[in-house]
Amino acid sequence: MRVLGVDPGLTRCGVGVVEGVAGRPLTMLGVGVVRTPADADIGHRLVAIERGLEEWLDTHRPELVAVERVFSQHNVRTVMGTAQASAVAMLCAARRGIPVALHTPSEVKAAVTGSGRADKAQVGAMVTRLLRLAAPPRPADAADALALAICHIWRAPAQNRLQRAVAAQHAQNAPKGRTA
Amino acid sequence: MRVLGVDPGLTRCGVGVVEGVAGRPLTMLGVGVVRTPADADIGHRLVAIERGLEEWLDTHRPELVAVERVFSQHNVRTVMGTAQASAVAMLCAARRGIPVALHTPSEVKAAVTGSGRADKAQVGAMVTRLLRLAAPPRPADAADALALAICHIWRAPAQNRLQRAVAAQHAQNAPKGRTA
Repeated sequence: MRVLGVDPGLTRCGVGVVEGVAGRPLTMLGVGVVRTPADADIGHRLVAIERGLEEWLDTHRPELVAVERVFSQHNVRTVMGTAQASAVAMLCAARRGIPVALHTPSEVKAAVTGSGRADKAQVGAMVTRLLRLAAPPRPADAADALALAICHIWRAPAQNRLQRAVAAQHAQNAPKGRTA
Repeated sequence: MRVLGVDPGLTRCGVGVVEGVAGRPLTMLGVGVVRTPADADIGHRLVAIERGLEEWLDTHRPELVAVERVFSQHNVRTVMGTAQASAVAMLCAARRGIPVALHTPSEVKAAVTGSGRADKAQVGAMVTRLLRLAAPPRPADAADALALAICHIWRAPAQNRLQRAVAAQHAQNAPKGRTA
């Protein structure tokens, strides 16, 4: 199972690719951040995120994209940007017939640290250990993206088989590119 | 000035094209709704909205896309879907080098009815009158999309000239399609 984790954001969109199955050691295939300038207009920022994510999808061909589920309890301005960046991530995946899974921040923290209220440092430390890295990935958004991918591989073996079957059917029924 | 107004939503995304300049009678070139099934998964809904909007952009070649500015005060679930649909609209426009303008619901209501607190019926009635239609466009999302386009044409003649200049420069500097 190869999963691209996406920690959505307009300024820094974390991306990380993890391969493996539940119960076996996991392998990191790539980690990074898609950045867009805070002073650019929103349309151009979304286009830049789309281009960045398309490159990650082209390079790593994940079987599933795991995206952080966005809530609107938090800061209004931030949450809108996060929702918009996550929409681009879900769009890029679905357009290729790749299934999308959403996980909440506390599900991700609980999966990798055992506590849904773990802090960033703890998540970074566990991601480093679980993927046998030399140092925690920087920035935190990159580590969070890897944690999302790990969370998905561990939480949902049965769900993954179902989603891949559904996605395969969708891919047969619909063209993969966009219409224009 | 030809403007595509988009009233973003996952279930019903209103679209309306209006042509004209401030101070002269306006012309409606098209109005409709891009619908997606509420039981489809979010990724496929966003792909359907992208395809629908691409068709509207192909058919009408607007110079500007006016999108409703989303706030997160309201219902949490609804606002997330609205933010995601608006992200797709802004992405589709910016990818083609078409400038995007955002207007708040109260700006739109004030522009077409004179009151920022007008109800849906009042907006529908004024859109019908201003565009010399036989009846108010249905559903309300379609009328709201036309109201957004009218609002933009009336509010921002100077802003429009600036945005078109900036967009022309962006279009020269960057390829219009997506990378994949």
